[in-house]
Order: sequence, then structure tokens, then C-alpha cells
Amino acid sequence: MKTIVLLCIGLSGLFAIIDAQFPHHCKSPPLMEGRLMVYVTKDNLVMFDRFSYDAFERRIRLREFIHVQNQTYHEDILLLFREGVYYSISYLNSTCVKKSFKGDFRPIEIPKDAKFQAQVVIGSLSEPGAGVLANNWNGKEDNVLYSATFTEFGCLPIMVLENSEAIGDVMASYFDMVVGIEDPDTFFPPSFCESVELTESDGLDPFTAIWVKQSN
Amino acid sequence: MKTIVLLCIGLSGLFAIIDAQFPHHCKSPPLMEGRLMVYVTKDNLVMFDRFSYDAFERRIRLREFIHVQNQTYHEDILLLFREGVYYSISYLNSTCVKKSFKGDFRPIEIPKDAKFQAQVVIGSLSEPGAGVLANNWNGKEDNVLYSATFTEFGCLPIMVLENSEAIGDVMASYFDMVVGIEDPDTFFPPSFCESVELTESDGLDPFTAIWVKQSN
Repeated sequence: MKTIVLLCIGLSGLFAIIDAQFPHHCKSPPLMEGRLMVYVTKDNLVMFDRFSYDAFERRIRLREFIHVQNQTYHEDILLLFREGVYYSISYLNSTCVKKSFKGDFRPIEIPKDAKFQAQVVIGSLSEPGAGVLANNWNGKEDNVLYSATFTEFGCLPIMVLENSEAIGDVMASYFDMVVGIEDPDTFFPPSFCESVELTESDGLDPFTAIWVKQSN
Repeated sequence: MKTIVLLCIGLSGLFAIIDAQFPHHCKSPPLMEGRLMVYVTKDNLVMFDRFSYDAFERRIRLREFIHVQNQTYHEDILLLFREGVYYSISYLNSTCVKKSFKGDFRPIEIPKDAKFQAQVVIGSLSEPGAGVLANNWNGKEDNVLYSATFTEFGCLPIMVLENSEAIGDVMASYFDMVVGIEDPDTFFPPSFCESVELTESDGLDPFTAIWVKQSN
């Protein structure tokens, strides 16, 4: 996987026919919902997420299946970055865990220092509805090498590959993206969480860590 | 990677809202050109290909960069399945290697026994041009587990993941697909190949093997 990240950065330019009219650093929608598959090679961990994302209020709701060490878990997580708190919710048992965490909100965006690498069509433009135009960007931020692909129209994420010493290789594929939030209540914990006491976190779990930019 | 292939098969259904109107086994165009990134985990081999594909005449032209064992190679390959011959061409040196090979043409298609798993949007349908509708299919053929994603309109390949004992895990991402062939001459070897004698192949190289279905 490290090879892929490095080669996306190094080799994709070989195919790119780039003229002076580079794509701009587009701005992704601040309110989005979608699905996400994340593969963390170091832990051989795969996650399938449904997520709701609010960059205004800095909050994320995740409903995910995590497959690691031949086990599959379900998690329902509400991350509130302004409060520095996350909830792990079980509707089945009407139970809730409320934990503090440290780290900044990590927006879904093309990093400011990212370099444009190539414009690609996923599928084809040979007929209507058969493809989507996307731009590949890459760079290095906080010792993390990344390769990020976003749609040309709408500036929506498609795939982000990352490589770092600390976490190893992470591949995130986004799909079923919708601009906006269907139900704003998704960012509030259910009533049975109200009486739960806050506990100190001993560090973020792997399934939440990818959303959090660790403070230096 | 094996985990991903298996989970694509096992878990993506959890997100699929499937009604009775299943997508049909669409037929991919017989003439296509495009680009392809292939990652073969067993050999830690990454290929970036430009390819032309002719399912009528069963021939494929590949121009590729191969990264393996910290080395990068360029290859220009013409595979002629009807003749059971492939050419390895170097325009730089005006040299050519002509080799025989065994194996059937492996069409780009959704396998007949593939099961529909989920319909997804890559990007978003929230605005025009921001996404493409695709279908995920999976199954097992000749002891190879696969997960294949093709566009709903046009039936063009987007991604194929495979896992087998023999080859390990192979991830193929297609992009910049065009229906048709820009220059039909691409399927003819250059003139300096005419006088080259045929040699017996001692087995296909990894960069051609993915296009060939081995005979049982």
C-alpha cells in the first residue's frame, strides 16, 4: 500500500497532460452525508461507515461495521469536536459511553499545500451518466504522505490514500455522497445518553482516529 | 487486501437497499481504451497502464509503467490471443520480442455467475456531473474470489478486486475510459517486428498475466 501512495504521487504525473489551466483548490461542501470504506493496513482493519458530516459545527456521526482480527463489530459514534467529547451509542441496549478526546477537527478537503497531479475520468465521458470527472492531488502534511481524489464538479471526495510512520497506510473510499444533512437530529445523542458521566479517554480508538487531526 | 475482497463480498450487502428491480448483467463495450492501475500484493507490484482493448479480434495493446522491487520499468506489449502470440516492443531501440503464450482471452465483463451486491454512487448525484452510478458484483470463478464494480450506464469497469491462492490479491482500478478505438493501427506491431522470429514463452510475465485466463 505504501508503494501505491508513493506511486500515485510519483507516477500518475507521467500520464497527465497538463496545460496552464490547472484545476483550482475547490471547496468541499460543509454539510455532507455518505458512505466510506476505510482500510488500515497496519491493523489489517476494514471499516464500512455511514457518516454525516458538519464542518460548521465540527461534528461527525458514524455508523460503522469494523472488521479486525477476524471479528466484525458494529459501532455508532457521535464525535463533537467543539466539546472534545465523543459518544459511543448502543440503541440495542440503550447504553451510552461518553468520553473526552484531544485533537482537532479534520475537515474533508483538499489540503492547502496539495499539488495538482492529474485529471481523470472515473468511468467514461463517452456517454451521458457513464463517468465522473475527478482531480488527483497529493503532498505531505505533518509527515503524512497523501494522495486525494475529489470530483471536479461538487468537490466531493472519492478516494484518499495516506501513508505515515505512526499509522501506516490508510485507504479511504467514499461513495453515495449527498450534499446536505437529511436529519439534523443525527448530531444529538439519544435521550438515554443524558445522564451518562464523562470519562477520560485513554486515546482514540482506531475507528475514530482517522477523523481526528492529532495536535502537535 | 484479502480482507477487503472478502468484506466487499460479505459486508457491502449490509448497506445495500435492494428492491426487486435488480440491475441486469450488462454487456461492456467490445472496443475500449483507457487507463488502469493494478496492484498485485504478492509481488508488491504496481502497474500504470494505458490500454486499448478489442474483444472482437481478441487483442490488447498495453503501454505500462511497472514498479516492483524499487525499480520502475516501461513496457509496450501487444497481446494477440487468436494467434497465441505477444510482442514486447521498444521504439527507443527499434527492437521487438515475439513470444508464444497459452491462455484464453479474458474479456472485461461482469462474469455470468456474478451476484449483484449493491448499487453505489461514486461521488454524488446531488448536482450534475458530480457522480457516477455504479453496480457492485461478486462471486467466485475458477477458485478466484472477485468483487467487480461497473458503471450502471455504459457498463464500463471501475474497479475489480480479486483473490486467489495462485496470484494472491489483485486490485485493478480503471479510469479515463473511452468507448471505441482512436487508432486501429495500435493492434499491429511496428515494421521492425516483421523479421523477428517467434520464441517459445516460458510463462507469462506478471504484467501480461492479469489479461489472460489460464486454461484448466
